[in-house]
Amino acid sequence: MKFLRVGSAGLERPAVLDARGVAYDLAPLTADIDGAFLAGGGVARVRAALAEGVLPVVDITGQRLGAPVTRPGKVVCIGLNYADHAAETATEPPAEPVVFMKASNTVVGPDDVVLVPRGSVKTDYEIELVVVIGRTARYLDSPDDADTVIAGYAIADDVTERAFQHERGGQWDKGKSCETFNPLGPWLVTPDEVGDPRELGMRLRVNGELRQDGHTKNMIFGVHHVVWYLSQFMVLEPGDVINTGTPAGVAFGANDFPYLRAGDVVEVEIDGLGRQRHVLGQA
Amino acid sequence: MKFLRVGSAGLERPAVLDARGVAYDLAPLTADIDGAFLAGGGVARVRAALAEGVLPVVDITGQRLGAPVTRPGKVVCIGLNYADHAAETATEPPAEPVVFMKASNTVVGPDDVVLVPRGSVKTDYEIELVVVIGRTARYLDSPDDADTVIAGYAIADDVTERAFQHERGGQWDKGKSCETFNPLGPWLVTPDEVGDPRELGMRLRVNGELRQDGHTKNMIFGVHHVVWYLSQFMVLEPGDVINTGTPAGVAFGANDFPYLRAGDVVEVEIDGLGRQRHVLGQA
Repeated sequence: MKFLRVGSAGLERPAVLDARGVAYDLAPLTADIDGAFLAGGGVARVRAALAEGVLPVVDITGQRLGAPVTRPGKVVCIGLNYADHAAETATEPPAEPVVFMKASNTVVGPDDVVLVPRGSVKTDYEIELVVVIGRTARYLDSPDDADTVIAGYAIADDVTERAFQHERGGQWDKGKSCETFNPLGPWLVTPDEVGDPRELGMRLRVNGELRQDGHTKNMIFGVHHVVWYLSQFMVLEPGDVINTGTPAGVAFGANDFPYLRAGDVVEVEIDGLGRQRHVLGQA
Repeated sequence: MKFLRVGSAGLERPAVLDARGVAYDLAPLTADIDGAFLAGGGVARVRAALAEGVLPVVDITGQRLGAPVTRPGKVVCIGLNYADHAAETATEPPAEPVVFMKASNTVVGPDDVVLVPRGSVKTDYEIELVVVIGRTARYLDSPDDADTVIAGYAIADDVTERAFQHERGGQWDKGKSCETFNPLGPWLVTPDEVGDPRELGMRLRVNGELRQDGHTKNMIFGVHHVVWYLSQFMVLEPGDVINTGTPAGVAFGANDFPYLRAGDVVEVEIDGLGRQRHVLGQA
């Protein structure tokens, strides 16, 4: 199943797409797609309701999509998690996951405007496979246990201001938490539909030009390792979001790609997880 | 006024202390002390209700205190913001604020048990003056505007695992976001009662021994500068929490102080903001 949230910002209604792509309204089952829904057996209830044919079909044509889950309690990010991206930034591949965080109010819908911050000249894109947490994860015994806490997968553009990240003192978070810097969605796709998360092609285009042409098989630390690892350092909660790192092709680093400016169009897609298209604006 | 939340975890009731220290139940006015309460004129309504004498007195003796605001949308932290602390860690004082983040589910009550993480041998304490945000702050024009968005002040112990922070690859957040790592409170004190936030003595004791004996006058970047600065990089929202940095005396660095272990007792106090006392446990 593909969960989504449809409607204007702050007023989204929950919906689900079945295997044929037909959209059904979830309002009869839940007020929203949030941590409580994911942890409380919501996914199983929706699956049963779809099988019984009791959900009303809804026409979502032309409507705005919100992020497919409500604002997460936290957005945890893995840095330098693709060998090709580590190489283009002249960084040694890490021995264990590099962890940083984004403010959770960076999350916006997949096609919402992304704002270049005031004073920014190095706003950059990063296509990422996102893990959405469905159950509390605290000191998992092994990566094999990660499947029990993963609600599904989604796409994020982990937008980053490189000067704020690297040239303004200290820690990366300063360049990661700007307004609108985490378009999420369009869908939260359940693991059964995604299949092996190490077998997903991912492509990001700017103004139609292919910039990132990656594949999750090149992740240094796979999603199950990442979830297990994070659970040793923090308590992951239902609805939390993990950005698992970006492949090569960002503007920062070895490339001659220009940074993003107002008016640019970014398209982001991962096999089976849909597609984002956001236009850059100016804060 | 001093706002507080009284009762078992997850079931706290809002209360307020008047200038004489008498506690009043706020349940007739608000369900909780959260961002909506702070942004929606709640403080003014409480002030009026106290003046009118219409709030019921409540006996809070012996009851647990929660954090004085509900779980924040984000916990933003300033690193190396006291010259004496920068010196003891052999670090140059920063040219502009060092920013990092803690997971917001690290926030616990001021006297709750703090858990040494599994595998930790370097769990450390950090007394900090906390700013609680009362209105949305986005690109403030100057530090002079910060007063318009500050709801009040509180104490945090910005608990930190130094090996996770510095020896496990990459960014500090990994050592900052462990379960129970941000005791907050006892009170959210309104600015009129705090006076000048640069005139507050602060003391932290471990097992009765004075470890940190600092003063907010030694902050490199004052609270108004910090709030203005952060608003250039992210949108601060009502209920958000800013840990503004710690003075000298932590275990990490030039001292011979031992790290924290299960059974240790940490007492934390800042002039006018009350006192925390938490016992260390083992995760």
